[in-house]
Amino acid sequence: MTPTTTAARGEHGSSGPAQNGASPDAAALEPVMRRALELAQRTPAGANPRVGAVVLSDDGAVLGEGWHRGAGTPHAEPAALEDARSRGHDVRGGTIVITLEPCSHTGRTPPCTEAILEAGLRRVVFAAPDATAEARGGADRLAEAGLTVQAGLLREDSEALNERWAQRMAEGRPFVTAKVATSLDFCVADAEGRSQWITSEQARAHAQGLRRRVDAILVGTGTLAADNPRLTARTPRGEDAERQPLRVVVGLGEVPADAAVRGTDGRFVHVRSREPEAVLRELARLGAGHVMIEGGPRLVGAFLEAGLVDELWHYQAPLLLPGGLPAASGLAPRALGDAARFRVEGTELLGPDLLIRRMAVSGEAVTTGAAGNELGRAALYGAEKNH
Amino acid sequence: MTPTTTAARGEHGSSGPAQNGASPDAAALEPVMRRALELAQRTPAGANPRVGAVVLSDDGAVLGEGWHRGAGTPHAEPAALEDARSRGHDVRGGTIVITLEPCSHTGRTPPCTEAILEAGLRRVVFAAPDATAEARGGADRLAEAGLTVQAGLLREDSEALNERWAQRMAEGRPFVTAKVATSLDFCVADAEGRSQWITSEQARAHAQGLRRRVDAILVGTGTLAADNPRLTARTPRGEDAERQPLRVVVGLGEVPADAAVRGTDGRFVHVRSREPEAVLRELARLGAGHVMIEGGPRLVGAFLEAGLVDELWHYQAPLLLPGGLPAASGLAPRALGDAARFRVEGTELLGPDLLIRRMAVSGEAVTTGAAGNELGRAALYGAEKNH
Ligand SMILES: NC(=O)c1ccc[n+]([C@@H]2O[C@H](COP(=O)([O-])OP(=O)(O)OC[C@H]3O[C@@H](n4cnc5c(N)ncnc54)[C@H](OP(=O)(O)O)[C@@H]3O)[C@@H](O)[C@H]2O)c1
Ligand SMILES: NC(=O)c1ccc[n+]([C@@H]2O[C@H](COP(=O)([O-])OP(=O)(O)OC[C@H]3O[C@@H](n4cnc5c(N)ncnc54)[C@H](OP(=O)(O)O)[C@@H]3O)[C@@H](O)[C@H]2O)c1
Repeated sequence: MTPTTTAARGEHGSSGPAQNGASPDAAALEPVMRRALELAQRTPAGANPRVGAVVLSDDGAVLGEGWHRGAGTPHAEPAALEDARSRGHDVRGGTIVITLEPCSHTGRTPPCTEAILEAGLRRVVFAAPDATAEARGGADRLAEAGLTVQAGLLREDSEALNERWAQRMAEGRPFVTAKVATSLDFCVADAEGRSQWITSEQARAHAQGLRRRVDAILVGTGTLAADNPRLTARTPRGEDAERQPLRVVVGLGEVPADAAVRGTDGRFVHVRSREPEAVLRELARLGAGHVMIEGGPRLVGAFLEAGLVDELWHYQAPLLLPGGLPAASGLAPRALGDAARFRVEGTELLGPDLLIRRMAVSGEAVTTGAAGNELGRAALYGAEKNH
Repeated sequence: MTPTTTAARGEHGSSGPAQNGASPDAAALEPVMRRALELAQRTPAGANPRVGAVVLSDDGAVLGEGWHRGAGTPHAEPAALEDARSRGHDVRGGTIVITLEPCSHTGRTPPCTEAILEAGLRRVVFAAPDATAEARGGADRLAEAGLTVQAGLLREDSEALNERWAQRMAEGRPFVTAKVATSLDFCVADAEGRSQWITSEQARAHAQGLRRRVDAILVGTGTLAADNPRLTARTPRGEDAERQPLRVVVGLGEVPADAAVRGTDGRFVHVRSREPEAVLRELARLGAGHVMIEGGPRLVGAFLEAGLVDELWHYQAPLLLPGGLPAASGLAPRALGDAARFRVEGTELLGPDLLIRRMAVSGEAVTTGAAGNELGRAALYGAEKNH
């Protein structure tokens, strides 16, 4: 997993002097890496890793800074190089300090290794190796091209930033977003079973933006039977978007021949399984990197129970729906200490509704690392009784 | 209810000429009242009416503007007069345009009628009469003192701003805040019945701020038995605050002789009733203008069912608690069309928790008035299916 490089690496910071005698030396780079980690925190948490980068001149002056601004935008390295250029700096012979190994593959953006080579940098220092099978190998590529490459400086801090992402990459499974549209008491249908419409037009238009970004949209056979959804991504004007996600129905039951979800574009799949892991394996095989579960309660509950929901988009309408259908069902009862946690990443008012975007917090992150500071056990379970 | 004044009044704007021939004339004042209504919207929605005021010179120039900034701060009229003074204006002989009849009683602040008389104004134009028994009579007091008083200009617009407040005043009942601390799936206790602590220290400290502001804190006998709470208001340093709310236990069951809630200061009451209306009548009799229900689920549910919750402070922890105890119980099943609505007034991150402050929207306000624009039925039930 760790790439072969020409440079020393250690758990925490550099363990040897830089190879070509290039200044600034390794110890001096720790504050720079801390700055890169700070920049990385500006990357919106989500399906992509959070990455920051700082470009230094050969005498250690900061020339440029960058971070990844989210899916489809330049990675941190080209962003930092562009920042340096826009300030009129010559970066040749310089160093780039990055929180994650530069990628060497072409995704929605060109490989960062090539941007680094073209820029004429002499040294690359990064914190964590890239866990993605396809993006890995960046360090080797750069070392082969003659650059000094140093891996592992503040590696754990970088990994803490991208814990779930790294785990998911290691498992080779897609990133999972669950989208629920609920009443303020967490119901997705009223006492008569109706769920159209709990949230407002504004919220629903917003959710269409999500559909346009993901690779696949999942519903269970129950939602299929109840709502006969189309599951296509629509533009703000209501037309089908150019890029369509895979439409996926999950469950052992049949999908009627005339179900709207089938469409005519061949982008429909019926995954005959009730195993969340197996469903994700199948979708990874079909090339999906980011999938979104749109319900219903049993499917959402099954993914939550399996710990396979990375992100929760919660559209909350200003209603109380006593006797309604809860947004997640079939979950095993949980005690406070074992509760699954989803920290708030942001909120937004959409007409009368509130969108609360949350990211899963794994058990580890609650006590250690960057997330730990934000959401420590101490904060969750204060010692003093003040009821 | 409507005070006797020397001036004409009508449903919409002035119906007669101003009495002492004072300019500016009534028609010209409509835009000024609209401005005052705009200012009134800056008053935080809550236990107090939203009020705005504009002071004009005798030739119609704007000298000062004010609005009520919340409990314990000056009312809109003294705020507008102070604004004019701070700009170096002489307000004598001028007009004040206010969205609500000036109060004539001393509460936490001195009566506004006296501030107006002292300032030497000649004319008072207001939109809605004050529905409060004790504050009413301001218009009469001013007219008797020789001022021109005109009531009713854009009265409905002002009433729409303060609908629930006016209704509550007419009924003579206290303002009711319900405070719930829940998981993200709306539970107040885990599957084992434990509710200490779902929310963080930060959220609990914040809720203490609420306790310091209200006149009474209510819990049901169920919460009493489960948690034996003290219900005192504490300072940020954990000491008992100087001003203590009434501590109220509601229900037919007994309160043990050694219950912590009894305290030693005589500010404990046991209301032996299961009727929310009767409970509020009793608390109004004891002088409470603003009460807060702190649970549990049955008491909160009973007040929600009776439509007697004006405001909801929802502290939401980043947890899922499947199998837990819902925050409100005993509510009759509701269909979407009949659902009780609580519009979002604001959100705040408190450590890992999210505070969502909501105000009840009565049926009327959903289709008409200021609140209607924000939360119309059209927005809640979009015609087009986009699932
Ligand atoms: N407001 C909203 O956002 C929203 C969104 C979606 C749905 N809804 C409402 O939700 C209701 C449908 O609820 P639902 O729970 O029946 O829908 P569902 O979760 O879509 O479908 C349940 C079905 O999913 C399949 N499934 C796949 N994996 C499973 C697993 N691990 N565990 C259990 N089942 C699994 C099973 O199908 P097989 O039996 O075929 O194997 C199961 O019967 C409808 O009223 C719909 O309108 C509301
Ligand atoms: N996380 C939180 O914010 C929080 C806050 C409070 C409580 N809790 C938890 O809630 C649980 C207690 O639940 P609970 O529902 O039993 O508590 P509760 O609502 O405090 O008490 C229920 C009792 O309230 C009385 N009552 C008064 N008016 C009523 C009405 N109109 N309808 C029904 N009952 C009325 C009844 O007492 P009589 O039978 O004596 O007439 C009833 O038994 C505990 O586990 C507690 O820890 C959590």
